Amino acid sequence: MASIAEKMIDCSVQALVQRDASLAADIPHMEQEVNHFQLEIDNQANLLIALQQPMAHDLRFIIASMKISSDLERIGDQAVNITENMQALLQYPELKRMIDIPEMAEIAKAMVRDALHAFVTSDSAEARKVVLRDDAVDALKEQTFRDTLTYMISDPKTIPVGLQLILVSRHLERIADHATNIAEDVVYLVEAKDIRHHADTLK
Amino acid sequence: MASIAEKMIDCSVQALVQRDASLAADIPHMEQEVNHFQLEIDNQANLLIALQQPMAHDLRFIIASMKISSDLERIGDQAVNITENMQALLQYPELKRMIDIPEMAEIAKAMVRDALHAFVTSDSAEARKVVLRDDAVDALKEQTFRDTLTYMISDPKTIPVGLQLILVSRHLERIADHATNIAEDVVYLVEAKDIRHHADTLK
Repeated sequence: MASIAEKMIDCSVQALVQRDASLAADIPHMEQEVNHFQLEIDNQANLLIALQQPMAHDLRFIIASMKISSDLERIGDQAVNITENMQALLQYPELKRMIDIPEMAEIAKAMVRDALHAFVTSDSAEARKVVLRDDAVDALKEQTFRDTLTYMISDPKTIPVGLQLILVSRHLERIADHATNIAEDVVYLVEAKDIRHHADTLK
Repeated sequence: MASIAEKMIDCSVQALVQRDASLAADIPHMEQEVNHFQLEIDNQANLLIALQQPMAHDLRFIIASMKISSDLERIGDQAVNITENMQALLQYPELKRMIDIPEMAEIAKAMVRDALHAFVTSDSAEARKVVLRDDAVDALKEQTFRDTLTYMISDPKTIPVGLQLILVSRHLERIADHATNIAEDVVYLVEAKDIRHHADTLK
């Protein structure tokens, strides 16, 4: 499920950057696969809890799996959104620079990959590193907003393209947020410690 | 938790529409409360599953509660985002019309309220009606986008305001999506039937 979600980020962003809609042709099919996995994982998790009455780490593992599959499904949704932005963008001439979109996409994709790697290897140190990278994506989102706004004001012809790029940067930011959620779930799974909303500093 | 989340939608949108930041002054405090509820609900759910080994409807109730609290927490995040848009907007003169933002906000808020009412009363018919209203919010989002784009192109001075309004409409759309998720969880809870991704039509 995670590797399809990662591939969806890749395809949607590559189609955008290379202005080639065919690179995103598989997105609808991949979205269906991801959706199907989510239903299947929830279903299996429910069965396992009901039939096996898991405790402690096993229970945390099952609940983490449900949460992670929900985040992966939403990552897929964001890739679908980016594909829609790409299709809107293709109606207009190219902006000189794709601002910081490719860099944001690289970081967000690496965060998804590393969060899942941390899950598979039960590595909470790696998961904590993923959480810290969210700020870099937020900073690039702000940068994209400011740069694009400047473009749009200085040359109103770029407004429709600029708008789509700003929306793409928001979708990539959401992907990084979901990767962060996954990483937080891994920390909870491994350490039985809830670090969401900085819970450890509040308690 | 739900009534705080609803109040957050109200305060953030009212502050935006009335151009009065003081109406959103309680948002940071309410966000903390919502975050705290989410951690507490997850914690109680984990304990209940581990200690009581609930089955069938009880288990579905506990899992639905965790999912619903996660959606409510994200609704609170969107209200925080709207507050940030409001603060950016206050730096600029008012646009003639607030486009369709207040109407979107009313529908989204009603969806949250009705989804929660369906949960509390185990009313899956009411929950299914909530799911159907998501399309109206999506249509208003598209309308806002088109109208605002027209404004921005005809008068580039409106670009910074227009951008914020488009982002607000996206946040309201996300709130409606979360209300839809909650409603789908209620259908699952009551009918033991997964209607996400139109699962019932696929099987």
